Amino acid sequence: MARLSAAAREEVLSEGDRNDLEGFVGYNLKRAYVILSTDFRRALGEDGFAPRVFSALSLIVQFEGITQSELARKLGIERSGLVAIIDELEDRDLVKRQPVPGDRRVQALAPTAAGKAAYRKAKDVVQSHEAELLSHFTKNEIETLIGLLKKIRSLGD
Amino acid sequence: MARLSAAAREEVLSEGDRNDLEGFVGYNLKRAYVILSTDFRRALGEDGFAPRVFSALSLIVQFEGITQSELARKLGIERSGLVAIIDELEDRDLVKRQPVPGDRRVQALAPTAAGKAAYRKAKDVVQSHEAELLSHFTKNEIETLIGLLKKIRSLGD
Repeated sequence: MARLSAAAREEVLSEGDRNDLEGFVGYNLKRAYVILSTDFRRALGEDGFAPRVFSALSLIVQFEGITQSELARKLGIERSGLVAIIDELEDRDLVKRQPVPGDRRVQALAPTAAGKAAYRKAKDVVQSHEAELLSHFTKNEIETLIGLLKKIRSLGD
Repeated sequence: MARLSAAAREEVLSEGDRNDLEGFVGYNLKRAYVILSTDFRRALGEDGFAPRVFSALSLIVQFEGITQSELARKLGIERSGLVAIIDELEDRDLVKRQPVPGDRRVQALAPTAAGKAAYRKAKDVVQSHEAELLSHFTKNEIETLIGLLKKIRSLGD
């Protein structure tokens, strides 16, 4: 069976939309995320934030004083995975680590003025790109989709 | 503002469900996918297939004789990213690379008997775990979700 002619192979492959993987929610989530994240990276350009760096900066701007542990929990990632992200943001002078009064073991994260400005600019770009990418979706479809995704996310709590 | 007390920080963080990120489809997709992929890895155990390896094996079993280029296209990944996956499947004697008649430049991929058996077993486990994880979703919700995800995927064609 491995010795299909090119024509026979083409015929088999054209049936490709009906394969096992298409029924998996996980597979469809991954494929859809690749579309969004590819567009995200294109929107912000080569030197732009990776999605995970953007998300971290977003929460640091919105929750000034958040600790690394709190940030990791809110992002749903391991604290160890966050260190490189914070290092990158600190190296770019967008975020500062600061002492927390009354607890010497932890440090709070605060955005610099440049960090706040960079976040607002990136957020505008990402929002308009996502809106453009999904312009053929109705408002109701977007709300339904986000609602179902949040319902899945709640399974992890 | 970075010097929030623990109590004040707690209060700020409890407002966390209403932050900028929650409105992004991309962010919600990623977070939902993490839930599914974590469950997937737990289902198949430490020595089990990673999602991308499972997906590749699935298509090789279903489309015996598929080439690496065709497989990469169907998976929506770069051909270069596929090489390590195929190497792993070949090292585990689950897949064989075979010559294609009439085209010396390409090789067809075929599952071994062990590859077919391993796929069927893994597929059953993944399907039952996904069904269990999503047991609080109605059939209609699952169909709506997959339909919307496929609509996003079609943007990449």
